[in-house]
Amino acid sequence: MIRCRQFAAALLTSLMFALPALAEKDQAAPTLTTPQLLAKSTSDEWRKPNPENLVVMQLANGRVLIELAPDFTPLHAANIRTLIRQHYFDGLAIVRVQDNFVTQWDDPAGDDNGDKSKMHPLGKAKATVPPEFTRPIDAKLPWTRLPDGDVYAAEVGFSEGFPVARDPASGQEWLTHCYGMVGVGRDNGADTGNGSALYAVIGQAPRRLDRNLAVIGRVLDGMPLLSSLPRGTGPMGFYDKPSQQVAIQSVQLAADLPAAQRPSIEVLRTDSKTFAALVDAKRNRRDAFYTVPAGKIDICSIDVPMRAIPTAAATRH
Amino acid sequence: MIRCRQFAAALLTSLMFALPALAEKDQAAPTLTTPQLLAKSTSDEWRKPNPENLVVMQLANGRVLIELAPDFTPLHAANIRTLIRQHYFDGLAIVRVQDNFVTQWDDPAGDDNGDKSKMHPLGKAKATVPPEFTRPIDAKLPWTRLPDGDVYAAEVGFSEGFPVARDPASGQEWLTHCYGMVGVGRDNGADTGNGSALYAVIGQAPRRLDRNLAVIGRVLDGMPLLSSLPRGTGPMGFYDKPSQQVAIQSVQLAADLPAAQRPSIEVLRTDSKTFAALVDAKRNRRDAFYTVPAGKIDICSIDVPMRAIPTAAATRH
Repeated sequence: MIRCRQFAAALLTSLMFALPALAEKDQAAPTLTTPQLLAKSTSDEWRKPNPENLVVMQLANGRVLIELAPDFTPLHAANIRTLIRQHYFDGLAIVRVQDNFVTQWDDPAGDDNGDKSKMHPLGKAKATVPPEFTRPIDAKLPWTRLPDGDVYAAEVGFSEGFPVARDPASGQEWLTHCYGMVGVGRDNGADTGNGSALYAVIGQAPRRLDRNLAVIGRVLDGMPLLSSLPRGTGPMGFYDKPSQQVAIQSVQLAADLPAAQRPSIEVLRTDSKTFAALVDAKRNRRDAFYTVPAGKIDICSIDVPMRAIPTAAATRH
Repeated sequence: MIRCRQFAAALLTSLMFALPALAEKDQAAPTLTTPQLLAKSTSDEWRKPNPENLVVMQLANGRVLIELAPDFTPLHAANIRTLIRQHYFDGLAIVRVQDNFVTQWDDPAGDDNGDKSKMHPLGKAKATVPPEFTRPIDAKLPWTRLPDGDVYAAEVGFSEGFPVARDPASGQEWLTHCYGMVGVGRDNGADTGNGSALYAVIGQAPRRLDRNLAVIGRVLDGMPLLSSLPRGTGPMGFYDKPSQQVAIQSVQLAADLPAAQRPSIEVLRTDSKTFAALVDAKRNRRDAFYTVPAGKIDICSIDVPMRAIPTAAATRH
């Protein structure tokens, strides 16, 4: 009995073809898996993140890569770059892990339990940044609308690798709080965030945060380093004791690393045919395991693949 | 600067009142938090799970409580009770933790890497159970419909504490794969599951699994014990080595425990006024932190509260 592996394998298996009528089920073409679909992708369907937008956060047990989204939150991206270049985050810590919600990192001295006289100085970075919770819809940005509907917004889709919601009535768009998205902690005032305290979503998408917090990007790699941490047992998932906090060794921009040390990764374009095929595969899965395809897909159930840049030898193969 | 705590506190703060017009924002009544709303609940709004449905899974570092849903998957519930009473699960292990997906426990010998000659015998339990992926809508079951819409199903709501989707066209209903829901691993055949391999959802609700797997209940308590485990680095999140597996010390039904050892907990009724107020609070949150209430809520973003049964002294207070 290989129920585990088969169960798991089936979950990765997917159909790229249109949903056949029920009577045609047995004649449906065999599924293509995510690896199979990705293997058919062309090199121009992948993009290298701008190294000015690629944040490398080093923890003791691994590296977290975050891509900033300056087309959506440009002032926050600029302030975060300033903080990074001042080595602001080096030596800070993950101070909060709330189950099914967020992992948050910050200056521990900025916490209620901290000694505020010891807070790291913001230096040339701004102490407050305008909210940037939404932005006017920019027709010049790529936009791949998802036709499946959404509970929270009139329209959802992808732009430049990020999940986005749009409200044509108000002409606004915003990044959505899906798993792995990174936002800016703040005080009560809408302009009190500055990017020095950040959180990543580690559970069911808390979409009620949309339009109330600035979302500055997405974790491209290393989510398990943030999602598998012990949950904080203090109020709202804060770690009770400094000893529970997880140290951040350094945060750097890829642009500031020697070329040889830059992460050699690329991200599937969300306006590519292969991405569309992946989304449709997840929406209309039918194979030896699945008997009923969902027919729909939620914006936050769609992964945007990342991979190590294939070497010349590998791509030629 | 207390950005962490205030941010966190605001996330728990919520409004139970109807959404005021934007112009009335500043006049809106102050919010009631979840603890405030629960403090106003009446004792008859809480129910004690039937001890025949309350599963106590003991790990080295704590206890996971799962409530079975026999009104939805009765044959699986019966088989799982049989397995539990044979001590089938005692000494099994968590064998798989796939990030943003599921934590799965099973007989390690049943895995591809296992020695199948060493598999625990199913004894009086059935090796295969009819699918029970959906069931005919039962008008006699409590049904609290959520008016917010859903990407995947025509209708969603709650019944007896569980999130449920309905398709009036086919007359079927089923438990949804929300965070903390527990399902039955199986082979490719729809009737190959028997409840001896189970998984809990630990990430964004994989609703595409709905109607393809039997969902047998919900984790009432102890989710962090399942969600914060190291992610498996083998294919699909399986642990590569037996040493990585997490031992299950015992699995028992509350009904089989001496009265004094039974978990003394109760669950908020999902057809209660307080539950409706909590849902509305999450849907229409507005306070010093939130500037834009979501106006909608996703079925899988709603928690069903559990609490220790108040002592007589506490309730009289």
